[in-house]
Amino acid sequence: MQISINANRCEPSPMRKFHPYALEAEKAGKKIYHLNIGQPDLPTPPAYYEAVRQFGEKTLGYDASPGNPLLIEAVRNYYKQLNVNLKPEDILITTGGSEALLLTFLSILDPYTEVIIPEPYYPNYTTFVHAAGGVIRALPTNPWEGYRYASRDRIESLITKNTRAIMITNPGNPTGVVLSNEEMRMIADVAKEHDLFLICDEVYREFCYDDKFGVPTMAHFRDIDENLIIIDSVSKRFSACGARVGCVVTRNKDLQAALLKFCQSRLSVATIDQIGAAALYSVDHEFFRISKEEYRRRRDTVVSKLRQIPGVVVEEPMGAFYVMASLPVDDTDKFQYWLLERFSDRGDTVMFAPGAPFYETPGKGINEVRIAYVLNQQDLERAMDVLAKGISLYQRQVMKVKAHTVE
Amino acid sequence: MQISINANRCEPSPMRKFHPYALEAEKAGKKIYHLNIGQPDLPTPPAYYEAVRQFGEKTLGYDASPGNPLLIEAVRNYYKQLNVNLKPEDILITTGGSEALLLTFLSILDPYTEVIIPEPYYPNYTTFVHAAGGVIRALPTNPWEGYRYASRDRIESLITKNTRAIMITNPGNPTGVVLSNEEMRMIADVAKEHDLFLICDEVYREFCYDDKFGVPTMAHFRDIDENLIIIDSVSKRFSACGARVGCVVTRNKDLQAALLKFCQSRLSVATIDQIGAAALYSVDHEFFRISKEEYRRRRDTVVSKLRQIPGVVVEEPMGAFYVMASLPVDDTDKFQYWLLERFSDRGDTVMFAPGAPFYETPGKGINEVRIAYVLNQQDLERAMDVLAKGISLYQRQVMKVKAHTVE
Repeated sequence: MQISINANRCEPSPMRKFHPYALEAEKAGKKIYHLNIGQPDLPTPPAYYEAVRQFGEKTLGYDASPGNPLLIEAVRNYYKQLNVNLKPEDILITTGGSEALLLTFLSILDPYTEVIIPEPYYPNYTTFVHAAGGVIRALPTNPWEGYRYASRDRIESLITKNTRAIMITNPGNPTGVVLSNEEMRMIADVAKEHDLFLICDEVYREFCYDDKFGVPTMAHFRDIDENLIIIDSVSKRFSACGARVGCVVTRNKDLQAALLKFCQSRLSVATIDQIGAAALYSVDHEFFRISKEEYRRRRDTVVSKLRQIPGVVVEEPMGAFYVMASLPVDDTDKFQYWLLERFSDRGDTVMFAPGAPFYETPGKGINEVRIAYVLNQQDLERAMDVLAKGISLYQRQVMKVKAHTVE
Repeated sequence: MQISINANRCEPSPMRKFHPYALEAEKAGKKIYHLNIGQPDLPTPPAYYEAVRQFGEKTLGYDASPGNPLLIEAVRNYYKQLNVNLKPEDILITTGGSEALLLTFLSILDPYTEVIIPEPYYPNYTTFVHAAGGVIRALPTNPWEGYRYASRDRIESLITKNTRAIMITNPGNPTGVVLSNEEMRMIADVAKEHDLFLICDEVYREFCYDDKFGVPTMAHFRDIDENLIIIDSVSKRFSACGARVGCVVTRNKDLQAALLKFCQSRLSVATIDQIGAAALYSVDHEFFRISKEEYRRRRDTVVSKLRQIPGVVVEEPMGAFYVMASLPVDDTDKFQYWLLERFSDRGDTVMFAPGAPFYETPGKGINEVRIAYVLNQQDLERAMDVLAKGISLYQRQVMKVKAHTVE
């Protein structure tokens, strides 16, 4: 018996590999500040739970394969408020953005075909692309350029006869980069001119900290209806990761038909979660404003704390709830193990996501980290202070460099 | 832009393609008896809803990627009562048996590798195998042999150097075939001798209508720990299809690692559905007994009604809640359209699943149907009478044969 080539090409989740070490640290009595997982801590709107509690069917049956009609209608209304008109069949409800991604790649990739993705990128993209036999062609960026990737020349230089799609995350995970309207238009043009799918993961759409961006979506460009595939989810928008409700939005009929076949094969998304998700879309828009303000404050805290640490390279992220930064350590993976196993400050330590797994290119990201600012203000301040002390001690004890003064 | 080869190899769900015609028939005032979808109608145990209602976390977060620990423990306890001892890591919770199947095939199939499956089989298997680039090699059976497939010679004749797995559904969907212990042992031996994975879809395990079968599982054969992959689900066992909670059970460490990578990439199964599913496993075993008795009565009704129709070939199914039968019509697909569009008996008509899509071999199953006996006794009797009248009228009106007397 053997494991498939594609499964062997996948890696265990870099965000979860420290889990056993974290358990050990906790057993040893340490408190860990978790900046490693992009799971919002804000309360899920009660509308979700109310709808779930009111579910009155005696038998918990399958829902419709393309998605619960009420939820599809709720998603349509949500997009209408963004001035995007969708037909019901343009929306296929999925088990989170994750299934949206997997089914999309299964629908458009053949073995050895390529997807262009700016790196650093969300590491699980690799698993979804590899599951479909595809290859990621990384569009390189740099911390000192704020990880911006919208360069026509750089993108076009990666297009080959095997390229099937350009994929972007806007706002970006892990970088927080948000595209300007001109940059979005340019990328749309490139996809159109080269006859490529354009996959836009827009699950962080509501989290743009400069009002000039509004609530960005590629769906406004109607000339790329055939190219565009939007990945969407309630997870971040409504602080409801565990609902596992997302969707694919596309106006491409062939792709709709392909996706629908996969949706039918797995029968339906969980019934009551769809009902809960539909209720989420009725939540007052004030919820978005309050969430955004909260994350903006946290971003400001994290960035200002990071800037106080000598040797850190960081640009202010404009969206999502992550910041990618280069730390003055030799290897953030080693540093993370050390923080869990050897370090504590008054019993506290900290977890982040080491940078290398966010890159396709070997050797890149080794001294970078992704920090998810999903803790309340007070915890976040403490976490950043613990990180600063950790860096300082690690430099002295492990790297044997003369310490910067950070205390 | 193009759709992937593998997506193009998949077909729309045969169970769902009549849906628009059914809607039209209902608009025209017809009542349809649904024997086409394998969705139990028995009430879901209230324990599910109670657990869901009691969920008290303010933020609906991701659950653990391999599955909620309480649910894994519940599944372990359930298997312990079948005298099967499992470690927690032998169980990976999935979004229904469907995801269990997809992730399994992604983990063990390379393009053009083969899976041997007795036909007729559950049509969605095709999509999952094709998604992974694999090929189904059908093990043929016949209605007049009661669709029994456990022949060593027939199985071994299909094994090639590209074979990766033998897959069975026991009890069978759509055939209701249940393997004897000797037959299970023989198939286990073949898998072991030829170094193949053995995938056993055992989601209908509790539905065996002859007590000699007990609650069958291949997991008792400890010499095939490396080969065995069990697909399991709460959908049928607890009448809870819409929960979308299933699992893969395997003791093969390499496969566990491969599956876990895919599980991590999609983060988690829906959180509250796992909590509900864990509660289901606490349901008194009397629930299984009552469910089984109910389905047994229905099976007896369906089979006896079918046997009263001249020209029908049917063997009594021993498990699951389906019966596959050969009808005296030219083409059950055509017949189904006719039933929806042209026929009604006092305003009633009936839906079943036409047989051809359950076969890999072209031309087979054209006059067969799968009937899911998931209606209450009274509706089931009426549905079978409507079917009998439909056959009779179709023979006279469309096939222009001299009518059998069934009225």
